[in-house]
Amino acid sequence: MSAIDSLLENNARYAERFSNGDLPVAPARRVAIVACMDARIDAAALLGLQAGDAHVIRNAGGVVTDDVIRSLTISQRLLGTREIMLVHHTDCGMLKFTDTELKDEIHEDAGVRPAFAMGSFEDLEESLRASIARIEASPFLPHADAVRGFVYDVASGRLREVT
Amino acid sequence: MSAIDSLLENNARYAERFSNGDLPVAPARRVAIVACMDARIDAAALLGLQAGDAHVIRNAGGVVTDDVIRSLTISQRLLGTREIMLVHHTDCGMLKFTDTELKDEIHEDAGVRPAFAMGSFEDLEESLRASIARIEASPFLPHADAVRGFVYDVASGRLREVT
Repeated sequence: MSAIDSLLENNARYAERFSNGDLPVAPARRVAIVACMDARIDAAALLGLQAGDAHVIRNAGGVVTDDVIRSLTISQRLLGTREIMLVHHTDCGMLKFTDTELKDEIHEDAGVRPAFAMGSFEDLEESLRASIARIEASPFLPHADAVRGFVYDVASGRLREVT
Repeated sequence: MSAIDSLLENNARYAERFSNGDLPVAPARRVAIVACMDARIDAAALLGLQAGDAHVIRNAGGVVTDDVIRSLTISQRLLGTREIMLVHHTDCGMLKFTDTELKDEIHEDAGVRPAFAMGSFEDLEESLRASIARIEASPFLPHADAVRGFVYDVASGRLREVT
């Protein structure tokens, strides 16, 4: 059985006991989370989010890319969020390669070199500060002042703020 | 108290009972989920994911953008995932505006017009098929054949496959 088929069986059980079918589209806590895609991060569990509470945006690294600015623009302008919480984490895969290494590997394997940045970084705190700066510099976000960055420790489950 | 401060209190309680501190970075089920950022979607709960099971990538709409291709490239090439599951959903905010409307509003308010697509769409199934096609056409993904698209019904909690 494929992994997806197994997850669909889980979903059938979830739907049987589902009871939150009438929540509004706008997030109740008016907050958007931007976190890494890492498999060890259960965003709802580690933040105690209930269904309907917050937008959750995730990509490789949890870095603020153009696509994250797009998502945050929609989150703030159309769906009323006011705060942004960035979550990077210890032992992140993005710390373990360089853009040049990965592009070389892809070039050799696929014959095409990605034109886009792969988003690797060397320092979690620096990457968080760069992501915060990208949000603050965006002309598209009406609420770019309430953004805070955190490192999630995958060994302890605890968030630490980076200032 | 800010929403973020409240979530940090939740995290302190989470960390007190945390017990999954030694999971590997590579996802155990070798699957990457691409889902909408919608606040009503608890990706781990609705798929029965355990910590360490799967990459979770999310943005406005759950559409496959360049940034999603970037994340999937890292997921497959560096962290061993093999299947991709796309999740759009009913009552999605992306169905309720057009790119032109939102860009006009931003232009008027901020004095700058976004050069990037906002990602709105008119039909969930068409958008899913377009996202699947983008994955299949990418030269960067070594495992672009095992991608499946689903609509999550926010009223029932149930996934429906789009073929």
